Amino acid sequence: MKPFALKNSLEAVRETTPLVHCITNYVTVNDCANALLACGGSPIMSDEPLDVVDITTICGGLVLNIGTLNVNTIEAMKIAGQKASELNHPIILDPVGAGASALRTQTASALLDELNIGVIRGNMSEIKALAGSSHSTRGVDVNPDDVVTEENLVENAKFAQELSVKTKAIIAITGAIDIVANSSKAYAIRNGSPLMGKITGTGCMLSCVIGAYAVASGILAGQEASEGLLDAVVAAIVHEGYAGEIAAKRMSPIDGNGSFRTYLLDAICNMSGDSIEGGAKVSAIA
Amino acid sequence: MKPFALKNSLEAVRETTPLVHCITNYVTVNDCANALLACGGSPIMSDEPLDVVDITTICGGLVLNIGTLNVNTIEAMKIAGQKASELNHPIILDPVGAGASALRTQTASALLDELNIGVIRGNMSEIKALAGSSHSTRGVDVNPDDVVTEENLVENAKFAQELSVKTKAIIAITGAIDIVANSSKAYAIRNGSPLMGKITGTGCMLSCVIGAYAVASGILAGQEASEGLLDAVVAAIVHEGYAGEIAAKRMSPIDGNGSFRTYLLDAICNMSGDSIEGGAKVSAIA
Amino acid sequence: MKPFALKNSLEAVRETTPLVHCITNYVTVNDCANALLACGGSPIMSDEPLDVVDITTICGGLVLNIGTLNVNTIEAMKIAGQKASELNHPIILDPVGAGASALRTQTASALLDELNIGVIRGNMSEIKALAGSSHSTRGVDVNPDDVVTEENLVENAKFAQELSVKTKAIIAITGAIDIVANSSKAYAIRNGSPLMGKITGTGCMLSCVIGAYAVASGILAGQEASEGLLDAVVAAIVHEGYAGEIAAKRMSPIDGNGSFRTYLLDAICNMSGDSIEGGAKVSAIA
Repeated sequence: MKPFALKNSLEAVRETTPLVHCITNYVTVNDCANALLACGGSPIMSDEPLDVVDITTICGGLVLNIGTLNVNTIEAMKIAGQKASELNHPIILDPVGAGASALRTQTASALLDELNIGVIRGNMSEIKALAGSSHSTRGVDVNPDDVVTEENLVENAKFAQELSVKTKAIIAITGAIDIVANSSKAYAIRNGSPLMGKITGTGCMLSCVIGAYAVASGILAGQEASEGLLDAVVAAIVHEGYAGEIAAKRMSPIDGNGSFRTYLLDAICNMSGDSIEGGAKVSAIA
Repeated sequence: MKPFALKNSLEAVRETTPLVHCITNYVTVNDCANALLACGGSPIMSDEPLDVVDITTICGGLVLNIGTLNVNTIEAMKIAGQKASELNHPIILDPVGAGASALRTQTASALLDELNIGVIRGNMSEIKALAGSSHSTRGVDVNPDDVVTEENLVENAKFAQELSVKTKAIIAITGAIDIVANSSKAYAIRNGSPLMGKITGTGCMLSCVIGAYAVASGILAGQEASEGLLDAVVAAIVHEGYAGEIAAKRMSPIDGNGSFRTYLLDAICNMSGDSIEGGAKVSAIA
Repeated sequence: MKPFALKNSLEAVRETTPLVHCITNYVTVNDCANALLACGGSPIMSDEPLDVVDITTICGGLVLNIGTLNVNTIEAMKIAGQKASELNHPIILDPVGAGASALRTQTASALLDELNIGVIRGNMSEIKALAGSSHSTRGVDVNPDDVVTEENLVENAKFAQELSVKTKAIIAITGAIDIVANSSKAYAIRNGSPLMGKITGTGCMLSCVIGAYAVASGILAGQEASEGLLDAVVAAIVHEGYAGEIAAKRMSPIDGNGSFRTYLLDAICNMSGDSIEGGAKVSAIA
């Protein structure tokens, strides 16, 4: 990555307060809104088909999360997504539970086909389901067979790059080791904490934070996934991942996942340009 | 205000545990429920058209918040609102995002026309959109051009009073300086903290707290906005605003918006009659 | 109870990470998900009729909570419930607000009639509404006339056992004193803290925790409510109730219901097999 790309990306979010339209699940939506505010963005949620065109128009980007999809919100996602595509707003797709049900897999695929998706973020099982691989998803968690390890990292980065070529979207596969790839580059990110899996919503929140970073990066969707957007996605993932590490260090013996949730938001909120540069564990994948 | 009106209002909530029916958005609904419990009320949420008549009937008041409106919940708001109007229950309207989309502006206007709304609470952009002024809303936040300042306070209070005459509702415009007005009186409230804008839901929570205070004040809607209800609305706003100040003082350098959210609920919960009287920054607007 | 049943039940949850499908209200859904993770389970929420068969199939149990029911989610509950019944997955019914509206009472009754419900958990007013008694519910809280006391405990346990015979479900009536009964046994549990009533969702969370324990207990629904499932339900209630006591002890004078919510999740998260055995206040009802 370019030196200072992480710091510049974070500061761009803080300076521009990107307004992000989220059509997301009702389980983690409050955390998504607070995570957007914490990172420096501003959230607006709207999932009524008659409302979404106006709302997307005044925003800078769109996050589509299928975590509690229903027939009305699927329609709203398509309408909002078409408007955002027209406006060249970056669209982030979070295919929660793709592979766990036919409706989720089909909906994620349809959104990918019909819209100009800029970034896809999911766990490896969800991404494989979207790629048409024959793996199964264990609910909303990654299937143990799909976990990215040091051993399969290069192979999985190649898979991500191929999917990026096919979809024209940046692929962000998150887990203990994250992979972020476009057609020409792939990065591994080793930030984060296992405690992030003990609360609901860290993935959903990340997709929203990516939305804020993507808007701030000023990169239009509609182009093939570009280097500027790639840097922004990496920065967003480092922001939340390193915040997870800071939150984990703050835990006392009587703290559990209730406190961790609070500490994670706090650390996202207090992250500075210097701390994100200092804490980042990003490397190019050979 | 009458001496001891704030203390009396708070104690009336604590003594009567007002049951408030909320039809509100799914982003901040959990905070709304906990804020109602914290101030001394009791929440019940129901937004199915077939369910709302029974639920509103057993409650003392109704809060209508259009933050994530959809066609079904709009219908539920109208049905519940008609029942609450019949029963002379106070109805609080929170026109989230009015001005940001045609559907939101139209829905808020329709609710105002069709129902016996006792209190309207929003930011200045939302209230102007509802008044038919030609301002635009920046998503769910106030447009910078609309911010209430010391310089435009008298002019904005006059606008609020005119809108109160027109709508027969108490107008509560909240921001750095809050304005609360009926046709004959206007107050400025200078409680609160800028940190309240770094979490989602402080406005939604406030509308619910106002609901509890309105029920406890025992003032029937259907009358022109009366002095007793006006006092109750002022007290509710001071309660949450001063709680925001207490929460802000509790913040340590590693705390962020996660902790602030918790501290705000804590301070609403622990507010006493004496502390609300001592902390209030309320003045009549000349 | 069998010696070590509580410890064994808790450890079974932690070792098997039961995946629980929840169709629940949007007020407390985030707390439900985090409570499931805290106790050792894994949540998945889905309430779209076209999605629920696939989701229920990959899970081990189903929780149906009618707190913000609507016509679509009622249909989803029935479809999911039929599939779960076919698969002999345990189904937990939480009849939130039964007695407060005709739709809630009718829906809870219909679910009970049509599905193979393994456990019903509610407050006494909700349970009486479901049993067809002529009591009324005060919103989502228990009617003061219905509170379980030392004086009426034996009588109420008899009522619970009769309802268990009639419904073939384990009956869990929670309040200051909890009653858990099948046709042959009844227990009183005296864990918990009054602060649990100052936050929203402790009942909803408990129904989900019971779901995780029921799956882990490996007891199939379809049998008459068995001793193994009864032990699991008791253990789940002790787990959350004793966590409430631990959370209450952690409160400082400036803490309120915001902090209590966090501390409760923390204590559920940190509960060990030894601490649940040590803290339990369970006794057979004569």
